[in-house]
Amino acid sequence: MKVCPRLLPAVAVLTPGLLPPALHPLVRGRTHRNLTKLGIPLARPPGTFPRRSLTSISAMASAHNPEEARFPPALQPPVPLVSKFKIALCQLLVTADKKRNIAHARWAIEQAAAKGAQLVLLPEIWNSPYSNDSFPIYAEDIEAGGDAAPSYSMLSEAARSLRITIVGGSIPERSGDKLYNTCCIFDKDGSLKGKHRKLHLFDIDIPGKITFKESKTLTAGQQSTIVDTDVGRIGIGICYDIRFQELAMIYASRGAHLLCYPGAFNMTTGPLHWELLQRARAADNQLFVATCSPARDASAGYTAWGHSTLVGPFGEVIATTGHEEAIVVEEVDYSLLELRRSNLPLNNQRRGDLYQLVDLQRAKSP
Amino acid sequence: MKVCPRLLPAVAVLTPGLLPPALHPLVRGRTHRNLTKLGIPLARPPGTFPRRSLTSISAMASAHNPEEARFPPALQPPVPLVSKFKIALCQLLVTADKKRNIAHARWAIEQAAAKGAQLVLLPEIWNSPYSNDSFPIYAEDIEAGGDAAPSYSMLSEAARSLRITIVGGSIPERSGDKLYNTCCIFDKDGSLKGKHRKLHLFDIDIPGKITFKESKTLTAGQQSTIVDTDVGRIGIGICYDIRFQELAMIYASRGAHLLCYPGAFNMTTGPLHWELLQRARAADNQLFVATCSPARDASAGYTAWGHSTLVGPFGEVIATTGHEEAIVVEEVDYSLLELRRSNLPLNNQRRGDLYQLVDLQRAKSP
Repeated sequence: MKVCPRLLPAVAVLTPGLLPPALHPLVRGRTHRNLTKLGIPLARPPGTFPRRSLTSISAMASAHNPEEARFPPALQPPVPLVSKFKIALCQLLVTADKKRNIAHARWAIEQAAAKGAQLVLLPEIWNSPYSNDSFPIYAEDIEAGGDAAPSYSMLSEAARSLRITIVGGSIPERSGDKLYNTCCIFDKDGSLKGKHRKLHLFDIDIPGKITFKESKTLTAGQQSTIVDTDVGRIGIGICYDIRFQELAMIYASRGAHLLCYPGAFNMTTGPLHWELLQRARAADNQLFVATCSPARDASAGYTAWGHSTLVGPFGEVIATTGHEEAIVVEEVDYSLLELRRSNLPLNNQRRGDLYQLVDLQRAKSP
Repeated sequence: MKVCPRLLPAVAVLTPGLLPPALHPLVRGRTHRNLTKLGIPLARPPGTFPRRSLTSISAMASAHNPEEARFPPALQPPVPLVSKFKIALCQLLVTADKKRNIAHARWAIEQAAAKGAQLVLLPEIWNSPYSNDSFPIYAEDIEAGGDAAPSYSMLSEAARSLRITIVGGSIPERSGDKLYNTCCIFDKDGSLKGKHRKLHLFDIDIPGKITFKESKTLTAGQQSTIVDTDVGRIGIGICYDIRFQELAMIYASRGAHLLCYPGAFNMTTGPLHWELLQRARAADNQLFVATCSPARDASAGYTAWGHSTLVGPFGEVIATTGHEEAIVVEEVDYSLLELRRSNLPLNNQRRGDLYQLVDLQRAKSP
């Protein structure tokens, strides 16, 4: 394992210092309606700032303004602390017994760490059956922590004692009178690095196949989530979030190395879309994608597709599994990012004169 | 074949009348840097226009502004003149003999029409070997037409005499002192509906596998191309254009039913990416995608992957072929668009409060 000398900043994108200071006036120069609604003041005419000086030479060579295809302009991925590490995808069988689910997840994390995993990814809703009836019953108060959040507390403790990073799948979260589908990310000291509340609720209606409305009980999150960890800059999505290519695109534009999607695709959309979407997000954005599903339980109210997978930045499946319980442990090699981006320099080939993706959350960060 | 009573406008998106008039002030209200550069005047403060009245009721129900995830706001696909029709993908073997290539393509188009195809799609660079050396030699002056553009003239004549729509793959085009990789689209009266010049040039470098630089000889096009035809609203991309998800996204936001990509993926990226990209563009944007490649010629300087394919709006492969010459004829059923968008209402679930895709070309249209 190679340890790179350059340290990562503690939190990636929403820390003001990480945006080049010269970009901030540019944000102020926009009257984009959303920005205005968000309270970003209009300071002076646009286009009067030395933006060109921030762009790469290769981008400058083109008349098609590839650097403007993202607003704010895309960031290069930072040099990660490790260029190679092992990731574990714990595809767990989930039961109605919450205590058992927590103990079983703890066991799986230990197994993964024993196999050398420095990053462990858990499934979507791993402490509870996946049902609108169950969410309120199994929900935890993450902000309160401790006994009010036994799943959360176990993950924090496991990360600390095993000295690993954990992307903790998701659990139902209660906050005030609202319920969320929430993924917590823990540093190897057990501290909470980030908390992603599912942004796009799973409201699907395929008559005769599957109908589910998460929005019956859940509230959608308010922000995207990208964190800097010992094992790279990681963007988080939960299941249905993977359908929205914009989320992956803005994570890539913030310099993500890896996207993690805990998910529980079903028997209808799983065969058609689960691998397709993972591979597409990876190939289009030239980064790693890791997913983790519950194991399939045909007797459960909701039957998960399984097939937790690791995909490389060429859209290649590096490791995957079937539908049964499994702990997939595989190496992630971040040097492939640079290789694939050099093979296909998509970021320098975009047409910023024709289209632009605006990351409103990042644009409004001070 | 059902013929719908509502007539399509002649040209889809760049016709001013197709943008709801009330949107135009909104465009003027933006100081987006690109818009400003494009000469769009700043008239009055943003957010003062009755934009909400333009949005759908379902979109209004959400606090997450799905209608703002696209700027200008997305258009619903128009009611197509036909809801079902047959498409043909002519996967042709291309030789160094231009006359033979033209005659052979003419023959294939006749075969397709005889099988009931109302839309015929040809491969990328079907009248010339695919090489930087060949492009200048085989190039045609499309604007001059007639004898200066025999491939172009044949397509126009075939469309007119067979009464079909042709998406004419692509040929090298000479315009002044520049060369383009250009797709012409012909109406069933033989008239030119649109001309797409490849926007993203194929500059790829995978050492030991494939290195190609279209930009050595070709110039990139300046605009995206979407046309209204008897067989629906069609967005056009050429080969490498398919890698840029934004292009497909803006076509979808302009109400495309179908994307056509003449392409000639190679033996390295073909197996990994060709079908993946087609299926991803279709599933993400919930529309049809049709691709057409030259047949494989292992003795050629550039070896095409083949595998011309039709994909439905659920990302499902409807018809495909191997690498040899083939005329794939299959039915397109546009009623699937509505079905899939009702199954997964992605357009109403986007987070316009978090991200926004700006279609600069459409935004600047008067």
